[in-house]
Amino acid sequence: MSREKFALGIDFGTESGRVALFSVKDGRLAGLATVPYPHGVLTVSLPGGPKLAPDWALQHPRDYLKVIEDGVAQARKVAKVQGCDVVGIGVDFTSSTPLPVLRDGMPLCLLRSHSKIPHAWPKLWKHHAAQPEANLINAVARQRGEDFLRAYGGRYSSEWFFSKVLEVLHDAPEVYELADKFIEGGDWIVWQLTGQERRSASLAGFKAMWLKGRGFPSSDFFRALHPRLEHVVEEKLARTYYAMGTPADGLSATWASKTGLKPGTPVAVANPDGHVAVPACGATKPGTLVMVMGTSVAHMTLGTEPKSVEGMCGSVEDGIIPGFWTHEAGQSGVGDMLAWFFLHGVPHRWRDEARKAGADFIAVLQRRAASLRPGQAGLMALDWWNGNRSVLVDADLAGVLVGVTLATRADEIYRALLEAAAFGTRTIVEAFEAAGITIGDIVTCGGLPEKNPLLLQIFADVTGREIKLAEHLRTCSALGAAMHGAVAAGKAAGGYDTIYEAARHMARVQKRSYKPRREAHETYDRLFKEYQTLHDYFGRGANDVMKRLKAMQRERRAA
Amino acid sequence: MSREKFALGIDFGTESGRVALFSVKDGRLAGLATVPYPHGVLTVSLPGGPKLAPDWALQHPRDYLKVIEDGVAQARKVAKVQGCDVVGIGVDFTSSTPLPVLRDGMPLCLLRSHSKIPHAWPKLWKHHAAQPEANLINAVARQRGEDFLRAYGGRYSSEWFFSKVLEVLHDAPEVYELADKFIEGGDWIVWQLTGQERRSASLAGFKAMWLKGRGFPSSDFFRALHPRLEHVVEEKLARTYYAMGTPADGLSATWASKTGLKPGTPVAVANPDGHVAVPACGATKPGTLVMVMGTSVAHMTLGTEPKSVEGMCGSVEDGIIPGFWTHEAGQSGVGDMLAWFFLHGVPHRWRDEARKAGADFIAVLQRRAASLRPGQAGLMALDWWNGNRSVLVDADLAGVLVGVTLATRADEIYRALLEAAAFGTRTIVEAFEAAGITIGDIVTCGGLPEKNPLLLQIFADVTGREIKLAEHLRTCSALGAAMHGAVAAGKAAGGYDTIYEAARHMARVQKRSYKPRREAHETYDRLFKEYQTLHDYFGRGANDVMKRLKAMQRERRAA
Repeated sequence: MSREKFALGIDFGTESGRVALFSVKDGRLAGLATVPYPHGVLTVSLPGGPKLAPDWALQHPRDYLKVIEDGVAQARKVAKVQGCDVVGIGVDFTSSTPLPVLRDGMPLCLLRSHSKIPHAWPKLWKHHAAQPEANLINAVARQRGEDFLRAYGGRYSSEWFFSKVLEVLHDAPEVYELADKFIEGGDWIVWQLTGQERRSASLAGFKAMWLKGRGFPSSDFFRALHPRLEHVVEEKLARTYYAMGTPADGLSATWASKTGLKPGTPVAVANPDGHVAVPACGATKPGTLVMVMGTSVAHMTLGTEPKSVEGMCGSVEDGIIPGFWTHEAGQSGVGDMLAWFFLHGVPHRWRDEARKAGADFIAVLQRRAASLRPGQAGLMALDWWNGNRSVLVDADLAGVLVGVTLATRADEIYRALLEAAAFGTRTIVEAFEAAGITIGDIVTCGGLPEKNPLLLQIFADVTGREIKLAEHLRTCSALGAAMHGAVAAGKAAGGYDTIYEAARHMARVQKRSYKPRREAHETYDRLFKEYQTLHDYFGRGANDVMKRLKAMQRERRAA
Repeated sequence: MSREKFALGIDFGTESGRVALFSVKDGRLAGLATVPYPHGVLTVSLPGGPKLAPDWALQHPRDYLKVIEDGVAQARKVAKVQGCDVVGIGVDFTSSTPLPVLRDGMPLCLLRSHSKIPHAWPKLWKHHAAQPEANLINAVARQRGEDFLRAYGGRYSSEWFFSKVLEVLHDAPEVYELADKFIEGGDWIVWQLTGQERRSASLAGFKAMWLKGRGFPSSDFFRALHPRLEHVVEEKLARTYYAMGTPADGLSATWASKTGLKPGTPVAVANPDGHVAVPACGATKPGTLVMVMGTSVAHMTLGTEPKSVEGMCGSVEDGIIPGFWTHEAGQSGVGDMLAWFFLHGVPHRWRDEARKAGADFIAVLQRRAASLRPGQAGLMALDWWNGNRSVLVDADLAGVLVGVTLATRADEIYRALLEAAAFGTRTIVEAFEAAGITIGDIVTCGGLPEKNPLLLQIFADVTGREIKLAEHLRTCSALGAAMHGAVAAGKAAGGYDTIYEAARHMARVQKRSYKPRREAHETYDRLFKEYQTLHDYFGRGANDVMKRLKAMQRERRAA
């Protein structure tokens, strides 16, 4: 009997990186190491350096390398796996996270001369300071009728690649000039591991206006944004982009010795995190909606043709699974909103009471909220604590709570937030279906499903659909990355030749699932109508009070 | 030099009674005793007895007597005042608080046979279970074109006298039959003190459909509500009602010995609390708006003729000051809303941090909220935590918070609630002025102004008017009651012949006041427009989501 083979997945998240070893044969998780980024997310100031403006979110590139240095050894130790039994490596990365680097890959922020300049640092997905640039991009693209806009549901986001690059050019032109390249964090990691700059078509497709068979928009378009941007593609990016699962190259000798893996072990091109969870949920053909539920929620499903769906994040050919279009939507702040409530909305008496009972206050809140019946609290929320990604695509929308009385308690508000998140997802599902994209079943993964069974039951009750769970909840993206590592290795080297085969063997869903309850679903049908009315009133221009309040807030900050 | 003379005011509030002695000469507060009601407000169950339904709020009549028994002695001791130097006694009482009693004044709830029957107990103003009865009264009165409806801004409240009496008849007809009388708590107290049942025209006018010169509605009207109610006035009420300041009679020998006061000391007929604060704020002619700010806020101003103002609580001839009409409006839950927030909205970290700093968390919250600039937080609230009394007169409206983001903090929400309360008051002031009732200055009293200077500054900034403070903030109603006690005594007996004279000598405002700041006022002008849009959207039928949510809540409770 031959020795068991493993694929390595490295999942770069917002606060930490996860390194996981999976059995190639059946997808069993053999070893996992979670490495928190020592610098976390930089939102207040640079390390030892100047303060950052609100809306800023940076990361430290050395933290990425530390995840690999520490994590691979730890995961191998837990799994008792030898380096020679790892057949392939895959990486996924939050995106868009552009870094300005020198020709040799050195990040500008690691140069002593630039370490105090915020624009020299990698901008995390939730860096939101490039909204003016996104507005400009959208205005120019709309005026010129640029094709890429259609792929992004009509609007390019401030979180994405060119918004952030243009922000550098506007606010720190010397950084823009010095940078030989701007590169996604995921592509940069693959370059570090292999010595080859082989960029991901999926990252470029979802975040950087790149269309399969068409490439980037013309230099005319970029010149219209800014004269210095005219040749940005030739000067600072790359011409060739590689499909998911393509081997970028083999692991370099340096990194082989740092990790104890074999030199030359195939490393797949980078994947966007979230998206890579789709095959890891077993979804390799149309009909299944995958929800990756964490701080935000990503909704992804496959289709055989491009579709115009209101307010989608993207509709990208071969974006996740070769041969299919990926339709993606999202909610920008579900886990974030709940975390906000735990920190900023739960009154002290709950913690005091829980402490007396020797319990965790979140558990008490959860239990009490679970015992409420739908409609019992008389509350309705709009889940826009972090804006609305789909279907309204508007970062200037904000949260609402309606129906508060002197009798309202924290467990009731909490449940209203869970329900609002579910109404937001139902809005997205109905938009998919209205565009002719049939949703059969729903499979979920991510951190929230593990922590919050009540949330899943409410999602099932509100959508009227069974919610299934991926076998690997928190390591779903890592599994997806590892599956692409196995594909990069190929069958001959102990992996698989296609992502379909990898998914057939390595991905599955759990036996337990959340089924809709008839009575609750009927009540939520009525409540969803109320949600829709408020959603449209505040979100579609009848009353732009949120935008005016935010504009006034910006005036005050600037004053 | 003759000895200094004093007037005694007894102010029966929601949670406690206040007994205060004031110098007749200059209104100086000589002694004060606050006596909490031992049974508080009965909302959960009767003492040792059955549970109460939600919306119920009862009180214990023995608690009222205890206020007098303990409080007068305490106040005299503090003031070092002898009984013979007290020239008159006045009483004010929360209303409407009807008690069913026997012919001799014995409350039914004190009979062993009826002590477990909730309907036998005094119903406090905030008992809200008689909404169906109020709806019936309004429907019948509207159909018949009853005059009294106009005096109440078109709507009779569930908090008022006949709603609660009809509730007894509907739900406990045997209690209705046994009761020889239904009487306001204030009138009952005066009866206890003097042995004479002399009812207050002001209480009857503000709460029981009684119109000066017209009396009660016809027996036809009452029969249309319920056949057994046809002769309710003759059978259970009284025919004659007395103006404020009229001596009901002298203090009985029994109560003189219990209190150490002189037998025969004049006792004025009872006053509604709140209303009685108007002359105590020095407002004895049109032009001044008096705001009594506590759990709720009452807005009162005088006029020379009846006016139809949208959603007023009442417009009563001679209601407070002889010769003038009193126009009254209100906000049903300002102090209550803030107390709710302290208990149910402030997260635990605020208390932890305050504790570490050796401070009170409310003080910390207050300080941080004060340091925010108008418009800085991007939040807007509707202050309807306890429904809307004016101008919408709708108990089924509820609170709203718009604009919450992940960056929102408790001090910002708190400030938004203060601002919403101020916007609610501005709405009322504008309704007064739209009806041709000119508001010159604003004088405030009550518990909130003392505790919450930030609230008053925001009220000044939002309304664009100077907010003055009565000299006696918490004892303003007690002073008003004492002034009527002095009027009941008359000049010959050491008091005054009219309330005007009493006000000239005993009532004044403080030197400090809150003046509107120009820049803040301009910002609040913009924000008030947003408030008005949301106010009308949720309050005037464009989206009755709050009513539907409350109806669903009632369904769930009933299920």
